Amino acid sequence: MARINSSYRKLSAGYLFPEIGRRVMEFQKANPSIKILLLGIGNTTEPLTPAVMDGLREGVERLSAVETYTGYGDEQGEKELREGLARYYSSLGVDLEADELFISDGAKPDAGNIQSIFATDSTVAFQDPAYPVYVDSNVIAGRSGPYDPRRGNYAGFVYMPCSEMNGFIPEPPEETVDVIYLCSPNNPTGAVAGYRQLQKFVEYALEQKAVLIFDSAYAEFISDPALPRSIFEIEGAKKCAVEIGSFSKFAGFTGVRLGWTVLPKTLKIADSGPGEVHQCWLRRQTTLFNGASNIAQRGGIAVLSKQGLHECRKLIDFYMGNARIIKKGLLECGLTVYGGENAPYLWVKAPEKLTSWEFFDKLLQEAHVTGTPGSGFGPSGEGFLRLSAFGHRSNIIEAVQSIQAKLLL
Amino acid sequence: MARINSSYRKLSAGYLFPEIGRRVMEFQKANPSIKILLLGIGNTTEPLTPAVMDGLREGVERLSAVETYTGYGDEQGEKELREGLARYYSSLGVDLEADELFISDGAKPDAGNIQSIFATDSTVAFQDPAYPVYVDSNVIAGRSGPYDPRRGNYAGFVYMPCSEMNGFIPEPPEETVDVIYLCSPNNPTGAVAGYRQLQKFVEYALEQKAVLIFDSAYAEFISDPALPRSIFEIEGAKKCAVEIGSFSKFAGFTGVRLGWTVLPKTLKIADSGPGEVHQCWLRRQTTLFNGASNIAQRGGIAVLSKQGLHECRKLIDFYMGNARIIKKGLLECGLTVYGGENAPYLWVKAPEKLTSWEFFDKLLQEAHVTGTPGSGFGPSGEGFLRLSAFGHRSNIIEAVQSIQAKLLL
Repeated sequence: MARINSSYRKLSAGYLFPEIGRRVMEFQKANPSIKILLLGIGNTTEPLTPAVMDGLREGVERLSAVETYTGYGDEQGEKELREGLARYYSSLGVDLEADELFISDGAKPDAGNIQSIFATDSTVAFQDPAYPVYVDSNVIAGRSGPYDPRRGNYAGFVYMPCSEMNGFIPEPPEETVDVIYLCSPNNPTGAVAGYRQLQKFVEYALEQKAVLIFDSAYAEFISDPALPRSIFEIEGAKKCAVEIGSFSKFAGFTGVRLGWTVLPKTLKIADSGPGEVHQCWLRRQTTLFNGASNIAQRGGIAVLSKQGLHECRKLIDFYMGNARIIKKGLLECGLTVYGGENAPYLWVKAPEKLTSWEFFDKLLQEAHVTGTPGSGFGPSGEGFLRLSAFGHRSNIIEAVQSIQAKLLL
Repeated sequence: MARINSSYRKLSAGYLFPEIGRRVMEFQKANPSIKILLLGIGNTTEPLTPAVMDGLREGVERLSAVETYTGYGDEQGEKELREGLARYYSSLGVDLEADELFISDGAKPDAGNIQSIFATDSTVAFQDPAYPVYVDSNVIAGRSGPYDPRRGNYAGFVYMPCSEMNGFIPEPPEETVDVIYLCSPNNPTGAVAGYRQLQKFVEYALEQKAVLIFDSAYAEFISDPALPRSIFEIEGAKKCAVEIGSFSKFAGFTGVRLGWTVLPKTLKIADSGPGEVHQCWLRRQTTLFNGASNIAQRGGIAVLSKQGLHECRKLIDFYMGNARIIKKGLLECGLTVYGGENAPYLWVKAPEKLTSWEFFDKLLQEAHVTGTPGSGFGPSGEGFLRLSAFGHRSNIIEAVQSIQAKLLL
């Protein structure tokens, strides 16, 4: 008698983005003539850059000739791409060996799967709010108690509230935890952790023999040289941290699918032998994954070329221009807005003590603009809305003008 | 104190293919002038066909223009591709709705991840020998007891021996099990199950409320019209089976990465409500996966076009020509050879009662040809070697000639 993995039944409601989709579709059905302006989901909108296009074209053309055709590659990724990433890290002052880098089909699967290599009874801490994948993957793995709909959280998990009080960067937990997820630049708050703030987490992890899972998917959006782009810029982090990176927002690869995870060989947790955590991820990936698309990998190699980096950074500047337009426009309305300076996300405080979903509905109904309700990212996200700087410039301007003209404040 | 998921420590030795790689590399180091002929790993070698190339090119070019650029798509895959697959199944006489098809980055991840949606204390049955991912993913998920190196199996798992006695297609287990993995055409034995044989499994599953996980990755290699290509050709299967398919061997997409999994909405297991198993996989994929590459998906759509199918079937005919050459050559040597008729794998019995690894070493050392040791696929694979029909024609001929000339029998 086959039965369902009952952990799936613990998951609260639908995944955030499908729920938004349903509400938007409902509004559109009721108001078919209204143009809805999307400022919600963080999805890239601009075409790939010329050097990257050439890399992808080369990736495809290689498959048409017997001399250059390739089938299965190493599950861990092509050597050339791993070496390119090692050079990228070197430019941040971080020394990594190419085989400490594992290429994947994106940060989301890695962020979801990384928990697999840690004990099933681990105590896990999350920033609150946080990208839902961290929490949901640990619920599915059976690490949580039931969901409390009143509090909006799961029993057994440790939440680190990110609030206006702490500038949305929490202190390490007071409890003893085994695994800590951190994301900086943060999705959804747009907050970026400084050296000293990350250092505290590294010190905590070394002291408690905990492991940090650091999501750096938005690192390239940092322009302030005083802010760390990689957890490995912090001394000691190679002994206690894993880092997850992505080409999605870096190069517009949200649909192409390419990311990476760094597992230093020096990473050692309580009961592991030297290099065992690294080996464990290698075993996970060689068993349950078959490598990223060889076409996407050629694209990734092109991103990391001198010309590719130059072009992709211009693309990021463009999105950050959007962020500035949104921030300025909303501040002029008298709204309170965080983030959007070294991150593509803006964290907007709901006016009049509205809840996140009330503010979502208000923005949709009055200004025909969608955001992402902060409460969907965790209980401390309540009362906020995430706006995203990804979008065509004309749409961004139209959305901001619509908010300025129509939102009743 | 973070700790390792101890299930990883239960996994026996290295994954099969890396171990082969190590032995081959060792032999090559000791004999640098000898050319080693690979008949081992089932990796495609021939360039993609023209219609498929055009699909991939279109997939790339769409990313260069603002009008056609796409970022994140549905995690379940593009509608056009799902509809194309529904039409493909329709040509086999199987009616499926497009949203019962989930596009993935290949059969291997799906074969590894599908177990996630079933209870962690499920009793699982495997064909023995079998593709190692089925067993290993269930070990990682904690469903096994320890590995017994003497017997070559895991406590707690049910093995269904595939032997010369039963033509390598087992009867349903005598025990009560919850989940059964089946692969036909089979990797590694090359055996193909007939209607009546699959019917018995469907009857068992319906009676025991068990679920069948049917891996049809090699379905396109069936030329005999009397053999079923999909489990859903069997009456009742849509109530008890999941099917995993792949473009890897179908179209040469081993490196491009594209596959699918069918979860009928009518599939119902012991404790599930209507459609719940389907919903559970949807939740798994939307949470832990972010869709296959949009470029690969355009390629998949091209594969399923009339011209694409025509070309890909010619490519499969080519590989099956290889299979015939290998089978004929080895039979002439007096070896006993199974498979290779409606499947790209040949299952060669080791002469002189050698073990699989002894035969592997003998073939490598005497004829400089590599196979894949049958024992790597499970205890009943002992005494066999898997040969693969994937390869350039000239290499296949050279390997067969080398075996005929040099293997000491």
